[in-house]
Amino acid sequence: MAKKTKSTAPLSAAALSKRIKDRDTATRGKIVTLADDLVKRTHAGKEPTIAIPTRTRSNTIWNKKRGILEMGDAQQERQLFNLNQAKLFMQSMLHASSIKELIEAEKTLSLRGMFYKGLHTVAGTKEKTFTDQSESDGILEDLEVSLGSLREELHIFAKKAGTIVGNITLVDTGDEIDCRRMGSGGYAIPSIVEPDIIQFKKCEAEFVLHVEKNTVWSRFNEDKFWKKHNCILTEGGGQPPRGVRRLLKRLNEELGLPVYCLLDCDPWGHYIFSVLKQGSISLAFESERLAIPQAKFIGVRASDYKSHELSDDVQIALTDTDIKRAKEIAAYPWFVGNKGWQREIAQLLDSGFKMEVESLITKDISYVTETYVPDKLKRRDWLD
Amino acid sequence: MAKKTKSTAPLSAAALSKRIKDRDTATRGKIVTLADDLVKRTHAGKEPTIAIPTRTRSNTIWNKKRGILEMGDAQQERQLFNLNQAKLFMQSMLHASSIKELIEAEKTLSLRGMFYKGLHTVAGTKEKTFTDQSESDGILEDLEVSLGSLREELHIFAKKAGTIVGNITLVDTGDEIDCRRMGSGGYAIPSIVEPDIIQFKKCEAEFVLHVEKNTVWSRFNEDKFWKKHNCILTEGGGQPPRGVRRLLKRLNEELGLPVYCLLDCDPWGHYIFSVLKQGSISLAFESERLAIPQAKFIGVRASDYKSHELSDDVQIALTDTDIKRAKEIAAYPWFVGNKGWQREIAQLLDSGFKMEVESLITKDISYVTETYVPDKLKRRDWLD
Repeated sequence: MAKKTKSTAPLSAAALSKRIKDRDTATRGKIVTLADDLVKRTHAGKEPTIAIPTRTRSNTIWNKKRGILEMGDAQQERQLFNLNQAKLFMQSMLHASSIKELIEAEKTLSLRGMFYKGLHTVAGTKEKTFTDQSESDGILEDLEVSLGSLREELHIFAKKAGTIVGNITLVDTGDEIDCRRMGSGGYAIPSIVEPDIIQFKKCEAEFVLHVEKNTVWSRFNEDKFWKKHNCILTEGGGQPPRGVRRLLKRLNEELGLPVYCLLDCDPWGHYIFSVLKQGSISLAFESERLAIPQAKFIGVRASDYKSHELSDDVQIALTDTDIKRAKEIAAYPWFVGNKGWQREIAQLLDSGFKMEVESLITKDISYVTETYVPDKLKRRDWLD
Repeated sequence: MAKKTKSTAPLSAAALSKRIKDRDTATRGKIVTLADDLVKRTHAGKEPTIAIPTRTRSNTIWNKKRGILEMGDAQQERQLFNLNQAKLFMQSMLHASSIKELIEAEKTLSLRGMFYKGLHTVAGTKEKTFTDQSESDGILEDLEVSLGSLREELHIFAKKAGTIVGNITLVDTGDEIDCRRMGSGGYAIPSIVEPDIIQFKKCEAEFVLHVEKNTVWSRFNEDKFWKKHNCILTEGGGQPPRGVRRLLKRLNEELGLPVYCLLDCDPWGHYIFSVLKQGSISLAFESERLAIPQAKFIGVRASDYKSHELSDDVQIALTDTDIKRAKEIAAYPWFVGNKGWQREIAQLLDSGFKMEVESLITKDISYVTETYVPDKLKRRDWLD
């Protein structure tokens, strides 16, 4: 059977460079507008304030129709002439200015780098601009939401994690990455995977298999699962970082590839899936660009213990924390109405034990790649 | 100037396959000999015992001439007919048998996978073969030393971490990896990088720059440092895993490339360097294949604070743990006779603060790539 090849519209170097320029011009424009508005307000005799959308649980809305978490309309003022807010106000302006500088220099910085970039003693005082990095990170999230720009568009990256192999060719900053020829190591997924950095050149793959851990990924890669099943194989080093989530989202949305997740049968695995699929509360404002409502959870399932005739060697007793966490997850609005997930979590709690993907090795070294996953896919046996 | 190209002897697919086969035959042979000897002992009416070299600090020797840590000659008996040792004895045999199976199946397994593979209830009892993975990991290290085979040769891998880019082409399980064309992400360094997995095909690079964190690595990659300075750029995600150490060792030994390390100015950075250079106590038996006695520490140095006119923004106060740790490191036999390191650690303790590589951003975003490192290299300003 001839394989169908998919790709995103190919861009010439000139078109790509124009796209980057347009994006950066737009982001830079937003920052300049933010600053100009402030100056205008001040000249008009008004207090210098900025409005920041509220990033709290209470301002997070579950959009059932779209299947993602969204941020509500609540906003909070940040005032310069308010002792409680003056520092936050100034920190926001300082970081906004650094971002403008980054865009103009065509460079990116890490979150840690941004902290150092903004750090100095305020003239005439002994006060530092930031107490620690967490203050700086919070301000950057504020700027993301108030500017309506992804962190990646602000030229800021985080620690990267995750690898990819499979039937796809990517272009990364002009370099062609043939993911079919990446040996045992794989291509390391960068922190920023926006369309101006990463393009999809040629893809025959019919789906993405995303696994939790890189040791499991190595098992699948060694068994050339992606070749036999014409797919793309990714891992995100546990809870996948934004770069991995965004890449999966793009593969799903732009190339129409279903994303199947193979995670541990425990509250942590369920949470990873929940974040991949619906988004997270802390990044609800990014769900639209990160969440994959069509993602499927193919396992490990609580019922696998019986149906796959596993021995009790795979059992790891649930801790009190696990039980508490499982109940919290079952109560998530997006899981409440989902019969499959209610049954899954109830079964986990009933059994009293959790199971790791790697425990399938008790059956056979390659049971997970040769029997378990192919069987699940064939029977379309997954949780939505 | 024409660049000099280096490579290891190119191997044909057949020659490579033969090399793998030879290595596996040798390792398998050692396991069979271990088992045969036991059977012979038993038939001769002797107690079934195996000798395991002792992996303790007291059996670790600092070989000044070679510049690496080595394991001494002390051994301990592991007896089957000894209540304290019977479990360890049986666990060793169980894992040895699993490894033989892996070699015959031409597959590899993770440390976690090995735990599950060996895990079962001992027939006729309620006793499990292993209580937890740490028991299993310890037995695997015992087997490494008693068989005199690298863990990698036993077909066992660990969680991978670390990325590489630069002027080198590798071959990974038959796939050509051009590290000059790896975009912003890089090639993910696998856990097993033995010569039968990874070959060096073509290398113009004149040295390796190894940095501690992947965020710093991204800064160097984005500034195309490796292109401008004709080098290879690696990172190991903090304390580099064995795969990264082994790859650096091979680049140093087989291609003759100097390895320069850019790490934080704190006891953790010093310890990472110590392990890269001399080896670690827990893996002293592997120093020969992992340690790089010629490695250089180019920074961050305590004296940089003054000589690079850094502001106090870069200062992070030393904690009590840091101070204790710094003194311990200064007392390592391989640092005791090293005037440079004694001065460095004394200066760190005197100053009362540590500094991160990323803090150089307080000077300028690209200060570290455009000024700091080039300057250090030019002036050959490093610690041995």
